[in-house]
Amino acid sequence: MARLPTLAVVGATGAVGTVMCELLTGRRNVWGEIRLLASERSAGRKVRCRGEELTVQVLTEEALDGVDVAMFDVPDEVAAHWAPIAVSRGAIVVDNSGAFRMDPDVPLVVPEINPEQLRNRPRGIVANANCTTLAMIVAVAPLHREYGLRELVLASYQAASGAGQIGADTLHDQLAKAAGDRLLGSRTGDVRQAVGDDLGPFPAPLALNVVPWAGSLADGGWSSEEMKMRNESRKILGLRDLKVSATCVRVPVVTGHSVAVHAVFATEIDAEGARGVLRNAPGVIVVDDPAAGEFPMPIDAVGTDPSWVGRIRRAVDDPRALDFFVTGDNLRKGAALNTAQIAELLAKTLTA
Amino acid sequence: MARLPTLAVVGATGAVGTVMCELLTGRRNVWGEIRLLASERSAGRKVRCRGEELTVQVLTEEALDGVDVAMFDVPDEVAAHWAPIAVSRGAIVVDNSGAFRMDPDVPLVVPEINPEQLRNRPRGIVANANCTTLAMIVAVAPLHREYGLRELVLASYQAASGAGQIGADTLHDQLAKAAGDRLLGSRTGDVRQAVGDDLGPFPAPLALNVVPWAGSLADGGWSSEEMKMRNESRKILGLRDLKVSATCVRVPVVTGHSVAVHAVFATEIDAEGARGVLRNAPGVIVVDDPAAGEFPMPIDAVGTDPSWVGRIRRAVDDPRALDFFVTGDNLRKGAALNTAQIAELLAKTLTA
Repeated sequence: MARLPTLAVVGATGAVGTVMCELLTGRRNVWGEIRLLASERSAGRKVRCRGEELTVQVLTEEALDGVDVAMFDVPDEVAAHWAPIAVSRGAIVVDNSGAFRMDPDVPLVVPEINPEQLRNRPRGIVANANCTTLAMIVAVAPLHREYGLRELVLASYQAASGAGQIGADTLHDQLAKAAGDRLLGSRTGDVRQAVGDDLGPFPAPLALNVVPWAGSLADGGWSSEEMKMRNESRKILGLRDLKVSATCVRVPVVTGHSVAVHAVFATEIDAEGARGVLRNAPGVIVVDDPAAGEFPMPIDAVGTDPSWVGRIRRAVDDPRALDFFVTGDNLRKGAALNTAQIAELLAKTLTA
Repeated sequence: MARLPTLAVVGATGAVGTVMCELLTGRRNVWGEIRLLASERSAGRKVRCRGEELTVQVLTEEALDGVDVAMFDVPDEVAAHWAPIAVSRGAIVVDNSGAFRMDPDVPLVVPEINPEQLRNRPRGIVANANCTTLAMIVAVAPLHREYGLRELVLASYQAASGAGQIGADTLHDQLAKAAGDRLLGSRTGDVRQAVGDDLGPFPAPLALNVVPWAGSLADGGWSSEEMKMRNESRKILGLRDLKVSATCVRVPVVTGHSVAVHAVFATEIDAEGARGVLRNAPGVIVVDDPAAGEFPMPIDAVGTDPSWVGRIRRAVDDPRALDFFVTGDNLRKGAALNTAQIAELLAKTLTA
């Protein structure tokens, strides 16, 4: 292929799609034509991307013709329908939905961890992991290679934009209603009354609150988001017997998912050794000086590419366990960036 | 003792002291005289308590004369100085600071769990546990009695008022600055710029953020708050070998500490059995119907007495492990209420 490959961004106007366009602007010599596709509601909108003003087109079968790689960020059911169509029209699909992640014929790829799995894609589809999984797996994988991972106990602090632009908008609206009343949050029910019925995509008010629920109900009282963290971690790391317990909690943060990680390994581990492994790990930045006020936080990690890792310490009562805290931008590494990285690896194979 | 005992509230004007006065208003036939004591800065202030308007007096040795029970909510170093003075003047002290909790001659009492330890108080002091420990230990203890606790992995979601009234005020001020700007929280550093230098008692902005730090630096990179959760859990439960790993994180919530708990037991456990144990446990309310949007949250638990427990589920990969989420009012059960409950048990022994 002499020409640069053609890229389609499907779902170009959502929270993730918007960041995808930002990222593409910084990567000039990868793609030839860039085509922005979305639902009829968004068609016709003008979006600046890579210095050009592009018009968003309606997603149709014809609009996919000639596309080499299509990055999808749309709801599960839309991806389930349209990804095979894009493949039938000749594209390789990189899908950020949950529709194909656990399909044994679809590789689940994190370029820093398992890029070799890109080669085997019998359905023509490559899946991008869930944003909460991605934030922490980039840090967990290099520690696994060094020490042999046996178990993960995870608690998440997930941002509103993980539920899309509507999630971020809902939090801003609720905060505007909550600000200024100094008693708010001090008495039962006051926040519910102030926020009113507009809960957006959340099951409860998010302002001045934490909501221990994300996704839908799975077996045994688990949430789908918690099961994703377990199942996707196992698949990405290739550890079929990994023990994982995750608790997923939404917090009043706009962007930046954090995870408190308790990781148990096959061998003894020390914090300084782990810090060294993480300092050399791709996609990771170590921010770990509590005395100087340095630890990973959403307000610092937002808008950046790596997973920020800190609070690294060996368990007091278990020499094989490490506790740490990780924060990543759920719209970048958690979604658009990892998708773009996969697409770029595919572009290289197409132009090679 | 024919008369009702005299109570002193030391630190009556802080966030916890204010809730103590509220609680005393609802408990009419326990105490005779109630004396409110505080630093010179707060002396002279009028506070309504039990239907009377009381004048806050300066804490002096003489002001403690005739006091039967003194409830302290003051900084560690103030408690370390004044509690022994109160004892020397004839009072039994119930202290909510960290000054005496790990002293082997000071019982650490949660009335629902180990009230019998009140009898043995060689220093005349009884300690109240840390607010984060209290929120979860009320739920963990009955499960321990049934299944035999071996290990806890904890991640906290701690409210601003856990750092006192100044903490709650700081969060409200920051939210007022952050509200209205719909881009805020979407770009690195924006929140730091909007909030400015007024961080109050926190090491970083709390609005639109989570801060994985509470307390001071202990050995091995642990925070003092995390070590309190470990050491106090061991002491309250009488389990010297209990394995505990806690990660303590401050979240932008005014009042209501939550904890994601992963508890490993000696025997197999099932969620329905655990739910039954918790439904019968004193000081616990089970709120566990995710499909109906029912789980423990700060906006519902604030202003109430019990620990709210939900998201109860057996670990998918370990039949001996239970995951659940708990929220409690850090100013009530986490501080003022537990202190008042201890003081009332002491009052009964004095009037018996």
